[in-house]
Amino acid sequence: MTKEIKELTPKNVNSSQWYNDLVIKADLAENSAVRGCMIIKPYGYAIWEKIQRQLDDMFKETGHVNAYFPLFIPKSFLSKEADHIEGFAKECAIVTHYRLKNNPTGKGLIVDSEAKLEEELIIRPTSETIIWNTYKNWIQSYRDLPILVNQWANVVRWEMRTRLFLRTAEFLWQEGHTAHATKKEAVEETLKMLNVYANFVEQYMAIPVIKGIKTPGERFAGAVDTYCIEALMQDGKALQAGTSHFLGQNFAKAFDVQFLNKEGKRKYVWATSWGVSTRLMGALIMMHSDDNGLILPPKLAPYQVVIIPIFKDKMSLKNIDKKATNIINDLKNIGANVKYDNNSNKKPGWKFAEYELKGIPIRLTLGARDLENGTIEVARRDTLTKETISVNNIVNCVKNLLKDIQQNIYQKALDYRSTNTVYVDTYDEFKEKIEKGGFIMAHWDGTPKTEEQIKGETKATIRCIPLDGDMVPGIDMLTGMPSKQRVIFAKAY
Amino acid sequence: MTKEIKELTPKNVNSSQWYNDLVIKADLAENSAVRGCMIIKPYGYAIWEKIQRQLDDMFKETGHVNAYFPLFIPKSFLSKEADHIEGFAKECAIVTHYRLKNNPTGKGLIVDSEAKLEEELIIRPTSETIIWNTYKNWIQSYRDLPILVNQWANVVRWEMRTRLFLRTAEFLWQEGHTAHATKKEAVEETLKMLNVYANFVEQYMAIPVIKGIKTPGERFAGAVDTYCIEALMQDGKALQAGTSHFLGQNFAKAFDVQFLNKEGKRKYVWATSWGVSTRLMGALIMMHSDDNGLILPPKLAPYQVVIIPIFKDKMSLKNIDKKATNIINDLKNIGANVKYDNNSNKKPGWKFAEYELKGIPIRLTLGARDLENGTIEVARRDTLTKETISVNNIVNCVKNLLKDIQQNIYQKALDYRSTNTVYVDTYDEFKEKIEKGGFIMAHWDGTPKTEEQIKGETKATIRCIPLDGDMVPGIDMLTGMPSKQRVIFAKAY
Repeated sequence: MTKEIKELTPKNVNSSQWYNDLVIKADLAENSAVRGCMIIKPYGYAIWEKIQRQLDDMFKETGHVNAYFPLFIPKSFLSKEADHIEGFAKECAIVTHYRLKNNPTGKGLIVDSEAKLEEELIIRPTSETIIWNTYKNWIQSYRDLPILVNQWANVVRWEMRTRLFLRTAEFLWQEGHTAHATKKEAVEETLKMLNVYANFVEQYMAIPVIKGIKTPGERFAGAVDTYCIEALMQDGKALQAGTSHFLGQNFAKAFDVQFLNKEGKRKYVWATSWGVSTRLMGALIMMHSDDNGLILPPKLAPYQVVIIPIFKDKMSLKNIDKKATNIINDLKNIGANVKYDNNSNKKPGWKFAEYELKGIPIRLTLGARDLENGTIEVARRDTLTKETISVNNIVNCVKNLLKDIQQNIYQKALDYRSTNTVYVDTYDEFKEKIEKGGFIMAHWDGTPKTEEQIKGETKATIRCIPLDGDMVPGIDMLTGMPSKQRVIFAKAY
Repeated sequence: MTKEIKELTPKNVNSSQWYNDLVIKADLAENSAVRGCMIIKPYGYAIWEKIQRQLDDMFKETGHVNAYFPLFIPKSFLSKEADHIEGFAKECAIVTHYRLKNNPTGKGLIVDSEAKLEEELIIRPTSETIIWNTYKNWIQSYRDLPILVNQWANVVRWEMRTRLFLRTAEFLWQEGHTAHATKKEAVEETLKMLNVYANFVEQYMAIPVIKGIKTPGERFAGAVDTYCIEALMQDGKALQAGTSHFLGQNFAKAFDVQFLNKEGKRKYVWATSWGVSTRLMGALIMMHSDDNGLILPPKLAPYQVVIIPIFKDKMSLKNIDKKATNIINDLKNIGANVKYDNNSNKKPGWKFAEYELKGIPIRLTLGARDLENGTIEVARRDTLTKETISVNNIVNCVKNLLKDIQQNIYQKALDYRSTNTVYVDTYDEFKEKIEKGGFIMAHWDGTPKTEEQIKGETKATIRCIPLDGDMVPGIDMLTGMPSKQRVIFAKAY
């Protein structure tokens, strides 16, 4: 494969095409033969595994355990929580039969009409209903609470317009479902998990986020309150990176889940749910990368370092191999995962381009002259800068660089967001600014009507009411009605 | 919950009911509202996670990477490999529609008949077809080979009779799918993964297995050869614990996957697939446990040790807490995961029964007198024996016991299998012995007809033709025709 084939559509020419090229050419994912469903390729899945492992550790540190519930949800379950129906029951994959048979009048297989299910089964779009139907049997008294369960699973939502990682019919995610004796405890849990998500996305994915609460119009179907973390992508569009829902007693009432409290009274249970998905992969790819390819934060890169030998003949390679082996061992001791590419069928230039495309944070180059001089060339992916250092310093250099890169790409993203967050007080200015993208901080009167009108006229939505925003009141830019604080508007993924 | 409630049906009264009681009462899994689909509860899932983690490490050590393919398989894909249709296309979950709508004439939701899929989608019963349809695009030349991919996923087979973990409509598994340039390499891969499975099941699950090859009648639908590992359960029935298939070029031909070899000629690709599932949980539970509950091998137990304080008052508990904290830290240093249950709402006797039920390998009991005397009581779950030792020796004691228990339950299972493996030369004796259960080593003439007749008359199947069996020829016990070696017959799960 030549270098040319791997070239991406430049971001400033067509950022949507750039993203798609990047996902495909960096071997992260591809579309499958099934409409809207993606194949996550090994390199993409290796990043997802790192995301999973870290999040799973954080969930366990905060007292959660994993479990597994059925893929199928009986159709009637979806009707039990009124808002939930509207949000999820409509576009979904429906299993109606359980047997195929040979086509009696031709080739291939046909659905056996005699094997029709009495009640259709829905592929889970989210699992509140099947889980609360189960919790009903798990919860009798306050002693059975809290339940702090998480599930790693695949879910299906029949999306019409799909994009790799960002919006697919089937996607992978985790969904936490907790049950509590008191409202206070459930609200605390909702916020605790919001903070877990924010910490993960900022500290591991190197993406700054704003924590906030959704407006009623953007709320999860069935929630009392939806909290979210919102990130600003490089193209000026917002991306919701995770949500944590305070479900009140809605699902407990829908599935009649009550418990005897300490005073011996029957009460409905309080609930939360929270989730992040393979959509995070989309955010990670879009946030940091450039026209040369992926830029991965060291903490989530499958390989932190690639070593490329420059050699003329087998003898020369043999000497470099030896030196490289020592370096690899030293770097393993500081927890770095190193790829050594001494394939002699590919030229160094091809390898440079390939590992830039794959976003490996640090590239080390080792040639015959380096062996003589006791040097090594160190290149960092985020800035594309390189320097030659004494090979004796390589471990410390890599250690520091990995920290630097993690910090630098976070800072870059934070600076970008700061530059692209504007305060707007008139609707005319709003309409002008929203075309350029970015976060727009504006006053809103709190009514769905105003929110709808703005969305209809500008395609901008209220991403969230920030939790840590300043609480200075003002007046709605459209209606002139009073507003308690500025909210964040943006066009969104 | 009283002790009585947790009591199991004794194994020798009804081993099937004993198994079911155990799965439910040890909080491993339960049936769900969806026919044939189970809920894996947190304690059961914690064991599965340990199984997953260890297997995943072993797959990666042998050069495999993970990826993810769609849940859905277009109906037409299943028809492409002739044998595969017969094996898998018949009993499956079929998605025919993608939308629900409000029932215009009543309550609830109905399937929207206008949202009918052009081609039905099958929930994957196994992924060979969708994966080989993908590999077609991944493979052009010998340089693209081998592909060594594994997938962790849920699959669905519409089983009519289900049992928790052993046979469920939806189950969790891993499926490896590899592609090779030569037959030799593919056969080697098939056997390599069979050995990985055997090593895992023997060394981690403490279950001895026999490696063998399936007869054509028991082969995976679409395979050229199916290799398996077979274990003998305590009730005398065999359980297939894992399979590794040499698929030849069957799927490459069905999906037209060819590559240019080094000589520039187009050749069909060679394939393997291999899998183990949550069925392993069933084997693990059934193999070692007793009428008091689960017995877990230390290497897969979520907790290796439980510490139970015996205390009269808060002051006494406080002192024990302090000592226990030190012990927990010391045990963590040797890699033991410790549960400390100082809940004052439950009596020690209740806790003893509970953790016996849950199969925690070692129980430590610490009372006020122990603090005075510098002692601690150590009980092992596998033998139900206990002794009091100097608390100063606790770390070494636990370290040795964990090894002992792992080894002891393996040895016990091996002894059981030896005792229950018999050599039989006449069909009359066969019919008598098969009723008692166990592995029966007998000669078979190699024909499907004889195999079928024996199965029809005795319900015994040929579990495998052992790879490491003695190669002494003989004559078929039923037909008198020549046989190359003894094969293993048993009734099976």
